[in-house]
Amino acid sequence: MTGHETEGNVQRGSFHVPGFRAAAAASGMRYKNRLDCALIVSDGPAAAAGVFTRNRFSAAPVILCKEHLAASRGTARAVLINAGIANACTGEEGLRRARLCAQHAASVLGIAPEQVLLASTGVIGPQLRLEPLESVLPGLVSALRPDGWLEAATAIMTTDTVPKTAWARAELGRTSVTCGGMAKGSGMIAPDMATMLAFVATDARVTSDVLRFWLGEAVARSFNRITVDGDTSTNDTVLVLASGAADHTIISDPTSSEGAAFGRVLTDVCLDLAHQIVRDGEGATKFVSVTVCGARNRERAARVAHTIATSPLVKTAVFGGDANWGRIVAAAGRAGVDFHPEGVSLYFDNVCIFRNGRPVEDDDVEEKASAVFRQKDIHVRLDLGEGAEEDTVYTCDFSYDYVKINADYRS
Amino acid sequence: MTGHETEGNVQRGSFHVPGFRAAAAASGMRYKNRLDCALIVSDGPAAAAGVFTRNRFSAAPVILCKEHLAASRGTARAVLINAGIANACTGEEGLRRARLCAQHAASVLGIAPEQVLLASTGVIGPQLRLEPLESVLPGLVSALRPDGWLEAATAIMTTDTVPKTAWARAELGRTSVTCGGMAKGSGMIAPDMATMLAFVATDARVTSDVLRFWLGEAVARSFNRITVDGDTSTNDTVLVLASGAADHTIISDPTSSEGAAFGRVLTDVCLDLAHQIVRDGEGATKFVSVTVCGARNRERAARVAHTIATSPLVKTAVFGGDANWGRIVAAAGRAGVDFHPEGVSLYFDNVCIFRNGRPVEDDDVEEKASAVFRQKDIHVRLDLGEGAEEDTVYTCDFSYDYVKINADYRS
Repeated sequence: MTGHETEGNVQRGSFHVPGFRAAAAASGMRYKNRLDCALIVSDGPAAAAGVFTRNRFSAAPVILCKEHLAASRGTARAVLINAGIANACTGEEGLRRARLCAQHAASVLGIAPEQVLLASTGVIGPQLRLEPLESVLPGLVSALRPDGWLEAATAIMTTDTVPKTAWARAELGRTSVTCGGMAKGSGMIAPDMATMLAFVATDARVTSDVLRFWLGEAVARSFNRITVDGDTSTNDTVLVLASGAADHTIISDPTSSEGAAFGRVLTDVCLDLAHQIVRDGEGATKFVSVTVCGARNRERAARVAHTIATSPLVKTAVFGGDANWGRIVAAAGRAGVDFHPEGVSLYFDNVCIFRNGRPVEDDDVEEKASAVFRQKDIHVRLDLGEGAEEDTVYTCDFSYDYVKINADYRS
Repeated sequence: MTGHETEGNVQRGSFHVPGFRAAAAASGMRYKNRLDCALIVSDGPAAAAGVFTRNRFSAAPVILCKEHLAASRGTARAVLINAGIANACTGEEGLRRARLCAQHAASVLGIAPEQVLLASTGVIGPQLRLEPLESVLPGLVSALRPDGWLEAATAIMTTDTVPKTAWARAELGRTSVTCGGMAKGSGMIAPDMATMLAFVATDARVTSDVLRFWLGEAVARSFNRITVDGDTSTNDTVLVLASGAADHTIISDPTSSEGAAFGRVLTDVCLDLAHQIVRDGEGATKFVSVTVCGARNRERAARVAHTIATSPLVKTAVFGGDANWGRIVAAAGRAGVDFHPEGVSLYFDNVCIFRNGRPVEDDDVEEKASAVFRQKDIHVRLDLGEGAEEDTVYTCDFSYDYVKINADYRS
C-alpha cells in the first residue's frame, strides 16, 4: 500500500471535519512507548449511529455503545478508543470498568456519560486497566485539535502496519460538506482477532435516522464485503457522527437527492477504509477482488464470492502466484448454491481461463493467467451464467507471515 | 504419526480381507518414478456402496461411480484409482475418458464395465491420460495379491506423507470377519484440493442395503467429522465392498445384533482412517479434538465445533503452542448458534480455563493450559451449558508448511 491510492474522489492522509477534534496518547496499558489511546470529540451534540459485531461474546464497549446510543436517542459527543486490551469475555467486571471509563471521560470533558462511546481492540480476556486510561485523559483532552485524526488512526493500530484514514467532500444542494474517518483492522482473513474498528465524522446536518439508514447501507457495501457473514470479532464497531456544522437544511429523508448524495460520500469513505484494511491484511502481499456475476440473485452471488474469497487454498495459491483456477471453481462448487456447472465461466482480469464448465485450451491462456497472478492487484470474475445479478468481495492472500503473525501473537 | 497408533481394536499396516486382492503400479501419467495407480478386485461380485462429494463440480469418476452403482444395483468387482490427475472440470470429454478407462479395465479383467468403479485424485482441469493407464493395466492385474493393500495405499497418495491403512476383526454371531481399508487425503483444512478417498473391504455377508445404511452412519461419524459440512472437493469418494466370503447367514437387517456389530467395525475402521488423514494434514504438527458438549441438540454442537475447528486463528495458535482461549470462544460466538455466553465453559484436556462466560483467574491456569498446548494431541472441550448433547470434530494445526505446500502445489 502506498498511502496515496484513492477510490474515486476519496483522499487519504490528514484531514479535518468541521465540528470535530481528535487526539492520541500513550497510556502504557499494554504496549510500551507507543500511542494506544485516541479520543474524538464533537464541539456540540452530534447525531450518531453505530453498527456492531453480531458475535455472541460482544465485548463490554460494544454493549456500552448500544446502551448509550439508545439512552441518548442517537446522539454523542465523544468516542474514546484504546488498543492493546479488547475488554472482551470479561464478564460483569469488564462492563463495570467500561462504565467507569466512560464516566471518567465524561467528567473530564464536562458532558453526560451517555454522550461518550467506547471502543477497544487487542487481546481477549484481560480486564481493562483503568488507571493508565484515567491518567492520560486530561492530556488527551488538552491535545484535541481539528487535524488530530491521523495521529488517532496511528494510536488504534494493533497488527496494522499503516494508519488508515479516508475523506471526501460532497455537495449537498449548494453546500459542500466533508466526510472523513479512520479505521483499523488487519485483514478480512481474521476479523475475529483483528477487530475491525472504524470511526467516521461529517459536518453534514442529518438526523440520526438518516445516519442510521445510510450507515447500514454503507457497511453492507464496504466492511461487510471484506468479511464473511457473521464472521465478526467480539469488538467490531463502526461509528459515524454528524456534527451538523455545515450550513444547509437538515436532511431528514434518506432518499432525497441530498440524502442520497450523503449516502454516496459515506459509502465511498467506508469502502476506501475497507479496502485499506484488506491491503494491510495480516501478511498480505496481494489485493484480490472476487466478483461473482451472472447470478439469479445477489445473495447467491455473495455466497459464492464469500466462499472463494475465504478459501485457504485460493488464498495460498494467490500468495504463490499460481493461477490455480481449479481451486476457485472447486470453492464455488461447495458454496451451497445449486448453479449448473456447464454455465460457469471464470476470468482473471480479462483473461477467460474457464468457459461453460470447461478449461479454455488456448496455448497461451495459462501464461496470460500467470501474468495476472504476478500483479499486486488481481480481479477474479466468476460468471454463473444464470442471471444478471452480481456481488463483489475483497480479500488478500494467505502468506507465511499470516501464520507467523498469528502463531506468535500473544508471545 | 508413528504408524503404530490405533483407535480401539483397529490395527494399521499390512492386512488382507478374504475375497479381495490389491495391487499398485507406476503409470507415469503425471508423477515420475512412483506408484500412481491402484487396483482392488473382488474374486466374485461384491455388495458395494459409496458416499460422494456434494460439490457442484463433481469429477468424472464420481459421476461414473454413481451410474455404475445404480446400473449394477449396488454390486462391484473392481476399483481402479489414479493419483496425479483428478479428471475434474473436464466436461464431456472427461466423462468419455472415464468411461473408456472403466471399459478397458473391465475387458482386461473379463467383467462387465459397470462392475468397475473409478476414483481419481490430483490436479483439477487436465484430461486423464488413457494411454499410460491402459499400458499398466495388464501388469496391475497380474500383480494382484491378497496383501497388496499397503502398496495400493502408497500409490494413491498425493501430498500425503504416509500411506494410510486400517483394519479390524469383528464377531458376527459365531463368525469372525475382517474389515480393512485404505485412505488418502491431506487434512481437513483443505478437502477441496486434497481430495479425500477411502476404500474399505470386508468379507462379511451383507446386503447392499445394509452396506449403504452403515456406510452412511460410519461416514457421518468419521470422514464428515473431519470436514466442514459441504466443504467437499470435486472428487471425494468413500467406497465399501463386501465380498461375502465369510461363512455366516447374510445380514439383511442393519439393526440386528450382527448388523450393528458390522456397523461398529466399519465405523471403527473409517474413524481410524479419518484420524490418520487429520494427523497427516498438510503441514500438520498437532492433532486436535474439538468437542462441544452441553448443547441443546447435536446440530448446535456440530456447528460450533466446526467453526472452532476451521478457524485459521485457532489453528495458527495451536501451531504456535499458544493456549489462546480467546480465539476459541470468539470463534464459537460467531458460529451462528444463539447460546448464552454466561453458560459457556472451556477446557483444554482437564484444565478449565474459562468458566460461565469468564476467564478462570487461578494463578497457574495459564501455565497448565500452555502445557496442554505443548502436547502433540490436544483435546478442546467447550461446554455450552444448555443441554446434554455433544459432537466432536477432529482437526490439525495451521503451519508455515501448509502455506508452503499450497503456494507451490502446481509448480
